[in-house]
Amino acid sequence: MKEHIVISKATIDRLPVYFRILRSVQDEGVEIISSEDIGRRIGITPEQIRKDLASFGEFGKKGVGYYVRDLIRNIGEILGLHHDWNIAIVGMGHLGWALANYRNFGSLGFNLAAMFDVDPDKVGRTINGVEVYHIECLQQISMEKDIQIGVIAVPAAQAQAAADALVAAGVRGIWNFAPIRLNVPEDVRLVSEDLSIGLSSISYYLTRSTKK
Amino acid sequence: MKEHIVISKATIDRLPVYFRILRSVQDEGVEIISSEDIGRRIGITPEQIRKDLASFGEFGKKGVGYYVRDLIRNIGEILGLHHDWNIAIVGMGHLGWALANYRNFGSLGFNLAAMFDVDPDKVGRTINGVEVYHIECLQQISMEKDIQIGVIAVPAAQAQAAADALVAAGVRGIWNFAPIRLNVPEDVRLVSEDLSIGLSSISYYLTRSTKK
Repeated sequence: MKEHIVISKATIDRLPVYFRILRSVQDEGVEIISSEDIGRRIGITPEQIRKDLASFGEFGKKGVGYYVRDLIRNIGEILGLHHDWNIAIVGMGHLGWALANYRNFGSLGFNLAAMFDVDPDKVGRTINGVEVYHIECLQQISMEKDIQIGVIAVPAAQAQAAADALVAAGVRGIWNFAPIRLNVPEDVRLVSEDLSIGLSSISYYLTRSTKK
Repeated sequence: MKEHIVISKATIDRLPVYFRILRSVQDEGVEIISSEDIGRRIGITPEQIRKDLASFGEFGKKGVGYYVRDLIRNIGEILGLHHDWNIAIVGMGHLGWALANYRNFGSLGFNLAAMFDVDPDKVGRTINGVEVYHIECLQQISMEKDIQIGVIAVPAAQAQAAADALVAAGVRGIWNFAPIRLNVPEDVRLVSEDLSIGLSSISYYLTRSTKK
């Protein structure tokens, strides 16, 4: 792995996409895949794919393609998916429960270690032995449970306070679902999800096809 | 609007990102913004941003920047967000309810018109006057309610059947949250969400910062 080179954020954001599609073709029984075939499945040019993957090292053979299993393992290592990150979910509304029940996280090595809410009816409930704690205990429990990634699923008005408590507890990755821009220190990695992006993309294509 | 030119999928996928960030800076009171400033906020190069926006027409002034309000309106039109699309959610587990309660959709012009589930306890329940129907009625109700976009939030095993029924009802856009690859006709626009992508991106950065 070439650790010293600078890799663009755009490339890094495409890696999980490659990882997902490769796991999916592996499930189909495919062992070797070309950059053209990967490209066709995800709408990225083969040139871009070869360039992205080459920036991490040599994972393919010219004229043969990429070995799917090796590439999955290598991208998984690059993405740090062998790490067993402890994650906590803050806000156990519908989205929080949906995320807590999302099986794919476990298979990627993410370990749900704690959940938080203000509602006394929810505090004490468990999913697979993992407990919901009162949000007042967010900082303390996050330190005790060695939480590395916090998932924010509270309403916008509570999101910054949740982020602050997570950061104070030493959490260095925040995955935000609240529709608000959060302020975090520079050394904290913040990824914000905006579900309206996928829907907007569909809307774009429907507008075009309707006009025909 | 230059309707005749071909716009790459990568550009189209970035438009909702621009749209989101512009609405956010508008909320901050910003009236004019440079491609450099947009770029800094979303991690895309100013050159790429100027190229993307130029492919749809002239929205900025050299040396001044982009007028935020005009650009939001123009991108909104390009994305078809002025359309009032009728959407249906199939599968009212936690994710389905979370999506049904997601306020941003309404503000973007998406109109939740029906929900579907197999559970008799859920059938007949309402959110803001919108009803949950039995999944057996998916095709019929989708036609009656003129559903254009179907959201699939059922388990993987039921996802293809849900997609088939939506397509049979004339739905031309499918937004899939089930962790499975769906087959749809070519004229149907399929967008699949994979929530593990955001988490993988955080994992990547944590791996790097932990090594230091």
